Formats: sequence, C-alpha cells, structure tokens
Amino acid sequence: MIRVGVLGARGRMGAEVCRAVEAADGLELVAAIDQGDALDELTKAGAEVAVDFTHPDVVMDNLRFLVENGVHAVVGTTGFDASRLETVRSWQAATPGAKVLIAPNFGIGAVLMMNFAAKAAPFFESVEIVELHHPNKADAPSGTARRTAELVAAARAEAGAGASPDATSQEIPGARGADVEGVRVHAVRLSGLIAHQEVLLGGHGETFTIRHDSMNRESFMPGVVLGVRRVADLPGPLTVGIESLLGL
Amino acid sequence: MIRVGVLGARGRMGAEVCRAVEAADGLELVAAIDQGDALDELTKAGAEVAVDFTHPDVVMDNLRFLVENGVHAVVGTTGFDASRLETVRSWQAATPGAKVLIAPNFGIGAVLMMNFAAKAAPFFESVEIVELHHPNKADAPSGTARRTAELVAAARAEAGAGASPDATSQEIPGARGADVEGVRVHAVRLSGLIAHQEVLLGGHGETFTIRHDSMNRESFMPGVVLGVRRVADLPGPLTVGIESLLGL
Amino acid sequence: MIRVGVLGARGRMGAEVCRAVEAADGLELVAAIDQGDALDELTKAGAEVAVDFTHPDVVMDNLRFLVENGVHAVVGTTGFDASRLETVRSWQAATPGAKVLIAPNFGIGAVLMMNFAAKAAPFFESVEIVELHHPNKADAPSGTARRTAELVAAARAEAGAGASPDATSQEIPGARGADVEGVRVHAVRLSGLIAHQEVLLGGHGETFTIRHDSMNRESFMPGVVLGVRRVADLPGPLTVGIESLLGL
Amino acid sequence: MIRVGVLGARGRMGAEVCRAVEAADGLELVAAIDQGDALDELTKAGAEVAVDFTHPDVVMDNLRFLVENGVHAVVGTTGFDASRLETVRSWQAATPGAKVLIAPNFGIGAVLMMNFAAKAAPFFESVEIVELHHPNKADAPSGTARRTAELVAAARAEAGAGASPDATSQEIPGARGADVEGVRVHAVRLSGLIAHQEVLLGGHGETFTIRHDSMNRESFMPGVVLGVRRVADLPGPLTVGIESLLGL
Repeated sequence: MIRVGVLGARGRMGAEVCRAVEAADGLELVAAIDQGDALDELTKAGAEVAVDFTHPDVVMDNLRFLVENGVHAVVGTTGFDASRLETVRSWQAATPGAKVLIAPNFGIGAVLMMNFAAKAAPFFESVEIVELHHPNKADAPSGTARRTAELVAAARAEAGAGASPDATSQEIPGARGADVEGVRVHAVRLSGLIAHQEVLLGGHGETFTIRHDSMNRESFMPGVVLGVRRVADLPGPLTVGIESLLGL
Repeated sequence: MIRVGVLGARGRMGAEVCRAVEAADGLELVAAIDQGDALDELTKAGAEVAVDFTHPDVVMDNLRFLVENGVHAVVGTTGFDASRLETVRSWQAATPGAKVLIAPNFGIGAVLMMNFAAKAAPFFESVEIVELHHPNKADAPSGTARRTAELVAAARAEAGAGASPDATSQEIPGARGADVEGVRVHAVRLSGLIAHQEVLLGGHGETFTIRHDSMNRESFMPGVVLGVRRVADLPGPLTVGIESLLGL
Repeated sequence: MIRVGVLGARGRMGAEVCRAVEAADGLELVAAIDQGDALDELTKAGAEVAVDFTHPDVVMDNLRFLVENGVHAVVGTTGFDASRLETVRSWQAATPGAKVLIAPNFGIGAVLMMNFAAKAAPFFESVEIVELHHPNKADAPSGTARRTAELVAAARAEAGAGASPDATSQEIPGARGADVEGVRVHAVRLSGLIAHQEVLLGGHGETFTIRHDSMNRESFMPGVVLGVRRVADLPGPLTVGIESLLGL
Repeated sequence: MIRVGVLGARGRMGAEVCRAVEAADGLELVAAIDQGDALDELTKAGAEVAVDFTHPDVVMDNLRFLVENGVHAVVGTTGFDASRLETVRSWQAATPGAKVLIAPNFGIGAVLMMNFAAKAAPFFESVEIVELHHPNKADAPSGTARRTAELVAAARAEAGAGASPDATSQEIPGARGADVEGVRVHAVRLSGLIAHQEVLLGGHGETFTIRHDSMNRESFMPGVVLGVRRVADLPGPLTVGIESLLGL
C-alpha cells in the first residue's frame, strides 16, 4: 500500500485526484490538504508520495517541504521553467531521497499521440493536424495541437525531411488551415464535441492516422496514478514529463 | 437489353463509360462515337439511349440530333445554363419522345452526401466541412466542398437556423478554415489521399458525420449506368441532376 | 408561447424533458406530473401539449385523458402495437382535435442515420454496420444497430439489390460479425466510449459512411422539443415516428 | 550513389522495387535479375546492395552468394525460421562484411501501427481491432490484424494488464468479433475498400485510435528503399524487421 497525500485537495483537479487515489488498487489516501492546512499533516499522516495540483505561487514552497522531508512528489501544477527546475535539483542535492516527477500533461492519450506523431513524422511525405473541440473554446488551434505541430516539425527537421507537398494555387482564405512551423493545423468547432485531435500522415499509397478523443478531465487520472505508483523508482532525482513512465 | 451509344467514346470519361456499359447487365454497347464520326452511326446501330461526355462546344448539336431522332440522352458534359436548358426543352416540345437527363455530377456518393447534409443541417446547432485530397490539387477547398457548403447554408437559412456557435477569440490565421456562406470549410492536402469529404454536424450531446471516400473516376460509372437504365421512364422530358433517380 | 405539461416528470427521461422544455424558446412548462398526481392538473394549468415518458401500464389511460380533453400528446413511452394504435385512433375519431405523436426514438441523429442508411443502401454493392459502445452494455449488437440492419435489408430487398459480396473462406469464428437479415453487424465494446454507430456502404472505387456519436441521453431532447413545437400542425390525427417532422 | 541489384526483378514485387529504386534519390539500379539469369551479373555490375523478393526455395542460395561476395542484402522473401536465420549468421561469421536485413513486412505504416499499438496497449483498459478489406479477401481476420492482436496481447500480459472489460450477456453469434489471444478482432468486407486497419484503445473518459490505410502494394516501397539506404550501417550483421530502422 502506497500512502498518498494530496495538495490542493479541494481544487477541481485535486478533488479528482483524491477520488482516483481512493479508487486505485494499492494506493491509500492519507492526507487531503488545501489552503490554510499545515503541510506537516502530510508527514504526520506518513505520506510516502504527495500529489500537487495547486498554484505556481505556492508549489515551490510545497516542493521544498516535500524534498526536505523525503516525500516523493508528483506535480501537475504549471509554471516550471529552467530556473525553477534548477532550484528543485539543488534542494534534492542537499537532502537526497525524495524523487520528483513534474509533468505539464498527465493525459496518457495526449502524450502518446504527440510522441507517436513525432516518431512517425519523418517517414511520411505529408503531415497535417485536425483538432476538434466544443464551440466554447477561445483559442484556435488548441495548445495540444500547436505543441504536436512543433514536435512534428522538430522531428522532421532533425531527420532532414522536406516540407509536405502542396500544389494549392487558388485558395479561399483559411481553407488550408494555420501554419505552425510548416505544419498545417485545422481547428473544427462543433457543438456536441469535447476535445479531439487527429494527426494525419501520408505517403505513396498509404495514410496513417493517430486520433485521441478525450471526454472529460477524468482522463488525466490514470497518468497521475501511474506517476504515484512509479515515482519512487524513477532513475534520476527529477523527471520532467510522463514519457519515460510510458516506456517512450 | 437496352441498346446504348456513347458520344466522346475516346475521351477519358467516355472510355470509362464504354467499359461500364459493356460490363453492366441488361445494357449493350452498340456505338462508340467520337470526333470525326457521323452521328447517324448511332441511329443506324439502333441506339435507344446515348451517353454524352463530350465538350460544351459540341454537346448542343449532339442533343438536337438525339432529340430529333428519338434517342434518350444521358449527359455528363458541363456548361448547361438556364438558356441552354430552355433550348433543349423547345426541341423536345417540337419532337416529343426522347427523354433527356443532364447531371453536373454522376457520383452517387457525392450526390447522396450533399443531399443528406442539406437535409440534416437544420436539425443541428453546428455544421463544418472537412475535405481531404491529394497534394496536387490546385484549388482549396474543392468544388464539391464549396457546393456542399452552399446547399447546407441554404437549407439552414430556409429553416431559420442560426449561425453555428463559435467563441474563438484568439486564432492563428487560417486555423478556423474558410468561410463559405457562413459554413467553415477545412481543406487537408496529404500524400496518399485521393478525394474524400466529411460533413460534421453537432448538437447537444451528439454528433453526426457523413463521409464520402472516392478512390477513382470509376466511381462515377454506377451513376451513369443508373441514368441509362432509368432515363426512358423519367416523368418529365428534361431532368437535371440524378437526385430523383436516387429517390431523394 | 406553447404551454407544456410533462407526465412522468420525476422519471429519468421526464426530468430531462422538464429541463429541456424550460430551456427552449417559445415553450413554457406549466405542469410536471408523476405517479400520485391528478391528471386534471394538466388541464387546470392550461397545457396545450403534454409529453408522456411514463410506463406501458399507464400510458393508455393518460392518452385517453389527453385526447378527450383536447391536449396534444407527444409520447416516448414504449409498448405500442397495432392494436394500441387502433384504440388511440378510435378515441380521436370520437373526440377530434388533439393530435398524437408517438415515437419509439426521439434521437434526431439516430433517426437520420437509419433513414439515410436505408435510402443509400440500394445504390452500393456492400453494406456493413459497426456499432461501438461502453463495455457495460449487455446486448450485442445494440437495438439501434439491429433496427438499422433490418431497414437496410428491407430497402435492398425492395430495390432488388443482391447480397453484399464476400469471398471469405477461412474465418476465425466471429470475425465477420453477426448476420442480421443478411447485413453484417460488428459490436465493439470499449472503455471510454458511450454510444456510437457507423454504417459503411461501398461500391466500385468509393465508400460512403454515416456515423452517429451520442454522448448522453440529453441527445433525445431536441427531438422531443421539435415534437412539442410541431405536433399541433401534423397533418393526420396520429403520427408514428419523427421522420415526417424531419422532412424525411 | 548506392548501386543496387534486384533479385526476382520480373515478379510483381520485384518489378515495383526496380521502379522504386530508379525513382529514389541516391540509388542506382545496376542489375535486374530473375530466374535463368546468373547471380554474378550482380557482382559484375558492381552492386553494393541487393534486394531479394524471390521465393523460399531459392532465397537461401541467393543469400549465400551475396554474403560470400560482400553484397549487403535486403530481403522481403518469406519463409525464414530460426534455423534459416542461424545458417545465415554462420555464413556471415565465415565471410564477414555483408550486412543482411530480413523483414516479414516492409510496410512502414503497418509496422508503426503494430509497434505503437503494442506500446500503448498496457495503458488502456480496453483494446479491440477493426480491419477493413475489399470483399475478395479469403481470410478473416487479416494476417496483419492477427499479428497486431498477438503483439497487443503479449504487451498487456507482460505489463500485467487484465482482460478488456465486457459485460455482454446476450449476443447474436459473431457480433463481438473473433477472439485472438483475448483481443476482439472485427473484419469488415466492403466493395470500394482496399486494406485498412484500426486499433481502438480506451480508458476512463478517453479513446485512442491508430489507423492505417493502404491503397496498393506501392506502399511497401518506402520501407524497401529505407532498407537499401541503411543496411550497410546496421549495427549487427543480421537484422530482422525494419523496426530498428524506424527508431522503434
């Protein structure tokens, strides 16, 4: 049984994490902490792993406490840049023992999609991305689609793959989508949809499609639970992203 | 056995029609005519139906001959406007008997897609179109996609349906596609593809998708063969489009 | 403003109907009735249309009351056979005025899918159905898939279309799906899915696909609201199915 | 410029290989050999790499010649078991220098699909496979689908993943597909299709789909060309499968 504490337990994501930990075999929720609670409730409860979905303003204080007290950390809070990561590493050097996993995205499906797309991209002449979301979304294309396009473009550049062929000479403006580092990205907005993305790759006589459909935020939980289970056994003190947990 | 003649028999489409007529149960190819051949080879061969895939410059002369000689006509040649149709009707009034079917598109799948999309469009909050073609295509979006968008927009306007909801406030130019009469149309160009189109409709808690994949020009032949079989029994002297043959 | 009453208002579907009526422009919920409430609350509240999602045991009593009191009825309760329909017609003959719309399925997407599939089926050599649902579903294939297959088979039989070609001579049992009146139906059960169906049609060089994705029971509500709006103007006293409201 | 010879050059696949080599940048076709031709035409022409799409009866003689003459080999001929591979290794030990790449499948898309499916399979509750082919295919499911199911099943077993959930208690025989090592596989046969496969994975609130569409045997050629380009630089003397060339 892994003893788990949750920081930010009354937030939207934190509450989901509490439910997921309670439902997972082999995990036990021993502390659910939020603003106003003392951090040492975690250590008093004997937490071995803490999950942090709080706020960029408080996450560094939380992490310092966890590292100093030997509690492994699984962090979904955003806002980590190179300097913050360096600070975390310095704490870990001073008081070794606690492993830290920080991931900008715990969605296993989304991470697999991006990784597979980048792996496959050098082997096909053409790549385009179609993302499809509910019509209340403010940005087009989605952050995940932009990130996928960047990864695809980098993988193609590294492999020396050329631009996707395109003979379009007559276009109604916008028909060919947005250009994100040379990759065309199309954003569909449709009532009834939630969050979906397709990466389309094509070469002579064949096409290859990777599609991810996400119905709700619950879909981040398997990635968080996986992180809780594996964080203690990660090879280095600090791991960024869940790719290595997925064997990618 | 229906005795069939083909005009434009050595052209790309005409040659396909000859093959399709020969392969179809109940049809017999009795004349294959092209530039330089005399039109009365058709009547000498006893053709009951003639298929015309020729050129706008010669199709009217062909049609006058067919109508005057009582040969039913199935016409895929383009360039018919209201005035040309009126002329054909006047010939049919003078010498009744020959039925004429003129269709801008003999692709059964494409015609079904456009018709179903227009029928369904008033009942969903959102409609968008994604068309996907090989990368050698010059125009984006495709003519079929533009025509579908126009039909969808007209059906929605007639039913009093409002605009598809869209909260996009931050867009990389082109991400949301081309605007064709208020319908967003996205054009994917991908090596390995041929000619494909999806119409996506969505409302509260459901989406509805109509997709057509066309692998080659052979796919127009079932529509031509259907036209040949049914032209003699069409209710009026002149029919435009194959919709009525499809029970639409 | 159409004044609407709901029978079975505390049931799962009835409660959804109450919410949908309250949210719909031009409709006003004036009575929400369930077991134990008196039916004349409807008439006292001045309901012009009543929606019935109750139980086969009580729906006939409800309908007789509605017809006798001149309240139009929109009925989603199941269990109507030819004899029950005849009884309703006899009540309407005795006291004309109230229109009755009885539909086994108010899902606009599902009804469009079945109707379009049957319309298209005679024009393609091959038809198969793939339905995809959450893994807690007890029956395979789904009722909607079976019904679609029956409608497709009937349409093909009427048009004289032959069996879909299939050269399979070596099969791991079940690979080719279930045979429903000559139409192959495949049932996928997958965690993360809700209720989805694809009808695949194919001929020489082209395929045509109709897909419906239903995320929740909310998706029946637009059909119920449409019924409420149109029931008073239906041509005959008794209408079965929402097809005619969809212009099909 | 890599100098390339083709063995089995007049066969269906061999002829495609000749065309692909001639069309590829940096490759030169210097010998096209088939039954009746002397193998030393290869060495006389100065071939550095030979591609073998011949027959299990002759491929071992070809390989011995290539290894003894220091010509790298890219082999698509089938029929290699452990004993044949051991024999090839012994030849390479005796006269080192020539690298050998033997692959049961040169389709980059198919290999990526199988590899990605196996990688993703442990992280989702459910996996099913739908393969879709033209109706003249004799076996159902396809060899690729069976192989994919085996790889998926092995990956799940190794990761300790349980069976995909399935509450089906009432089934029309075949609806739930074929059982291939615990993975459900559905085979669609449809006029207009060529060779297609979807691997569907699903967990709480999300689904993940990998799809491969293959339009013709041309789609094996990029894999063969990749093999020709990379064979000389492969780490070991004998490599089985193109996975390592794809960075998988």
